[in-house]
Amino acid sequence: MRVGPYNTGGNMPRIIRIFDTTLRDGEQSPGCSMNIEEKLMVARQLARMKVDIIEAGFPIASVGDFEAVKRIATEVKGPVICGLCRATDKDIDRAAEAIKPAERGRIHTFLATSDIHLQFKLKKTREEVLEMAVAAVKRAKKYTPDVEFSAEDATRSDMDFLCRVVEAVIKAGATTVNIPDTVGYAIPEEYGERIKGLVNRVPNIGKAVISVHCHNDLGLAVSNSLAAVLNGAGQVECTVNGIGERAGNAAMEEVVMALRTREAYFGATTNIITEEIMSASRLIKNVTGVAVQPNKAIVGANAFAHESGIHQDGFLKEKSTYEIMTPESVGVTKSMLVLGKHSGRHAFRDRLTGLGYDLSEEELNKAFERFKRLADQKKDIFDEDLVAIVAEEVFRIPETYELIKLNVKSGTDTKPEAEVVLAVGGKEVSMKAGGDGPVDAALHTIADIVGTKSKMLAYEVKAITGGTDAQGEVVIRLEEEGRRVTGQGSDTDIIVASAKAYVNALNRLVYLGKKDEKTVEKMCE
Amino acid sequence: MRVGPYNTGGNMPRIIRIFDTTLRDGEQSPGCSMNIEEKLMVARQLARMKVDIIEAGFPIASVGDFEAVKRIATEVKGPVICGLCRATDKDIDRAAEAIKPAERGRIHTFLATSDIHLQFKLKKTREEVLEMAVAAVKRAKKYTPDVEFSAEDATRSDMDFLCRVVEAVIKAGATTVNIPDTVGYAIPEEYGERIKGLVNRVPNIGKAVISVHCHNDLGLAVSNSLAAVLNGAGQVECTVNGIGERAGNAAMEEVVMALRTREAYFGATTNIITEEIMSASRLIKNVTGVAVQPNKAIVGANAFAHESGIHQDGFLKEKSTYEIMTPESVGVTKSMLVLGKHSGRHAFRDRLTGLGYDLSEEELNKAFERFKRLADQKKDIFDEDLVAIVAEEVFRIPETYELIKLNVKSGTDTKPEAEVVLAVGGKEVSMKAGGDGPVDAALHTIADIVGTKSKMLAYEVKAITGGTDAQGEVVIRLEEEGRRVTGQGSDTDIIVASAKAYVNALNRLVYLGKKDEKTVEKMCE
Repeated sequence: MRVGPYNTGGNMPRIIRIFDTTLRDGEQSPGCSMNIEEKLMVARQLARMKVDIIEAGFPIASVGDFEAVKRIATEVKGPVICGLCRATDKDIDRAAEAIKPAERGRIHTFLATSDIHLQFKLKKTREEVLEMAVAAVKRAKKYTPDVEFSAEDATRSDMDFLCRVVEAVIKAGATTVNIPDTVGYAIPEEYGERIKGLVNRVPNIGKAVISVHCHNDLGLAVSNSLAAVLNGAGQVECTVNGIGERAGNAAMEEVVMALRTREAYFGATTNIITEEIMSASRLIKNVTGVAVQPNKAIVGANAFAHESGIHQDGFLKEKSTYEIMTPESVGVTKSMLVLGKHSGRHAFRDRLTGLGYDLSEEELNKAFERFKRLADQKKDIFDEDLVAIVAEEVFRIPETYELIKLNVKSGTDTKPEAEVVLAVGGKEVSMKAGGDGPVDAALHTIADIVGTKSKMLAYEVKAITGGTDAQGEVVIRLEEEGRRVTGQGSDTDIIVASAKAYVNALNRLVYLGKKDEKTVEKMCE
Repeated sequence: MRVGPYNTGGNMPRIIRIFDTTLRDGEQSPGCSMNIEEKLMVARQLARMKVDIIEAGFPIASVGDFEAVKRIATEVKGPVICGLCRATDKDIDRAAEAIKPAERGRIHTFLATSDIHLQFKLKKTREEVLEMAVAAVKRAKKYTPDVEFSAEDATRSDMDFLCRVVEAVIKAGATTVNIPDTVGYAIPEEYGERIKGLVNRVPNIGKAVISVHCHNDLGLAVSNSLAAVLNGAGQVECTVNGIGERAGNAAMEEVVMALRTREAYFGATTNIITEEIMSASRLIKNVTGVAVQPNKAIVGANAFAHESGIHQDGFLKEKSTYEIMTPESVGVTKSMLVLGKHSGRHAFRDRLTGLGYDLSEEELNKAFERFKRLADQKKDIFDEDLVAIVAEEVFRIPETYELIKLNVKSGTDTKPEAEVVLAVGGKEVSMKAGGDGPVDAALHTIADIVGTKSKMLAYEVKAITGGTDAQGEVVIRLEEEGRRVTGQGSDTDIIVASAKAYVNALNRLVYLGKKDEKTVEKMCE
């Protein structure tokens, strides 16, 4: 049990298991796809913060998903490693194979139980669904003692039928039963009642942990999860920064800090090392490129900022007048040492760890070498620079195209023009073209050389703190034949950064086309 | 009563009043300050969506705040216009003066009731606070029949004392009593109990509306508000996009859509025209420059997006399998007509209205003229372009500095160099300088000409949809002597846009230094 300033005493609190699905539900949301190296880095950070279970992916969904789950199961120690699967033999067998290398592996199989899903999606009767659920759990149980069953759309399911399904899957061997609010429709009081109803009505409920998995469509994912905890749930499924389908999942940092701050009220807490929260949040932001709004609870840039005169005044007199938790408790440190050319390996590694990056010796060497070169060019090295370095040196993918040279001219009375030299499969091609602006000119020239058919979905320049001499980081999202990729590039010159991001995105399209085609659409009957 | 697809019948629902504090609590959060024209535009959009009460500002806080409340009270019809004040004569008189021109004006006075605030901030006894509260309400009542009293930090206040204060202020004439969770510490069940306790214990509670004002530090602002509604609250204080101090306030769109989607459960609804929600959200995003994360409930870019194969499959078969509200119900329209050179005034105005901009004839003329010039330069005009046009043509402030000319050269083997001509108070000054990149070179050159001491807090390029030929919009935040400003600039050339944003921010610093100095710090005893 963690004893912090917020534990006001009383009986020993229950430990609520944190089941992180950033790599599964989070990763499958628009713009959040990660490559295998990025997934491993995230899994290592989750292990460092002592998440109880990592849902590492959906192995049948694609070759890439399978490989990612398998590598995480092989390399990441500590948490239970879980793979998701539908309630079919093929899905379950594939998930079992992926989690096999884990110290402790879990198979998580799901099947909808609401009439609306039975009628429109599954086209099955309740009896058929009940049989499928039991069969799935039994099959999974042959591979691992740790089996979770999810009743998809549980909050819109008939309560009597839900109780029957839960009882039957526990009898079949499920050790965790998940009651997801798949469409984000539940209201805390009502959801709490449903959990309490299961506790009271399912005779063998004591043999399994009740889990909850809430979506945020009405902004209630966290409070629904907490209402469930108050009524007997022992596991919360959540994601870092609340990423996930549509409006996302319950945000892990909010669930964890609500339990920690109000431990006495809930009589419950978690095993999470809360001081690792900011590192995890930054890592997910940096790896996916998905922004965290400044007014996001716990991890937003303003979460601990006090602006108005009145509040500042009260704040200065006594912290607790406006502060219910300390910034330090979630890993927000006040004085961030700025790195520069005299910073050593140790300081460099520490800062990377603070950003959630756990690098191997070899990766660290590459990144440190690049850092030293950059420090020769500019005085202060900010976090954004480090993120850019890791993105380019560690998360690299095979480069079909490589930017060799780029020069631009532009201005209020200059027609923008770009000159580009690009290596295409090792052979240099050069071209000149104009555009509406220097970025447009540079990207058009590259597109002409490559002959891409991709469509640009978004062009973003990430916020830079500390001035315009920080490296600019550009994020470009492209789509081609249904495949979406995110390219990143950084440079002190924003035009060069844009060109690098575009070339990176084009390389990812080539890579994805070869390696990671999603197959799940075809598999749905 | 609104009868929509989500009203499943039953008795007439209670109407919950929506008290919007975007212009007060929202505006005082870091990076959210607005000028008077921007505030008016926001107030008009709030009136269009039928918000019941607009808290327009904190009149004593600054000359700018006073003027904004007064102009909104004069020009915006429909909602009650409210001004905030502490429980002192000077504050109340100033608020009364500001709201005087309103059709219906409200004075909202507040005083802390928790022991921790009494001890550290107010240094007063409970009896003294009780007397001050009663005196404040009586004084406000002389100016308007509509008086709201807030018991600051109510959730950490002694319940018996809170009941006494509420009873006394109602007796003194308060028509609304607000029970804020000032520090975002409450949990829904507990907060609901507190509201129920007031309903049961305060004898004259029926003579006033119970209001709630929740902060989102633990991610529970919306669910706390809803728990209060279930237990008898009749007014919810909230902000568009949930902006506000620290982790922000309850998000209006989430409160409203939860009540609308689950009207039968709550037995309550609101007067809000929900189809105006997206316009309001975009307007606040554009005016403040504060991003809305893609997984934000209701108004995030992904809120209605379905990515994974399984969900798409279910979704195609029957919408209701995964959709609990339609995108159309919150004003997300599927086919956004792209504007171009052949678009007329009518289409142009319609699109601006969709972005929350309600322009006067004169403003529309200026904006349309600029639109036509831009349409000659580029084929498709996107929403981002329109936002940029309005920012430059409508929300202009006096220009001490004006960018006349800018030319840059840069590239992978070119030393970045900028040449700038700037008009300073009408006189042209020209200079050349280098930098780490073309943006850095351009901004350094401008800084050298102006001799500014300001510090750059952030440099951002806003997301551009539809390609790099859209105008880039750059946002730059500067700080000088405690004053923070946000400058915006747009151009198809990102370097030019950056220079414009920087010049705009510098002009705002000059303007703010003259006109809008915050005085509240000095007034706190």
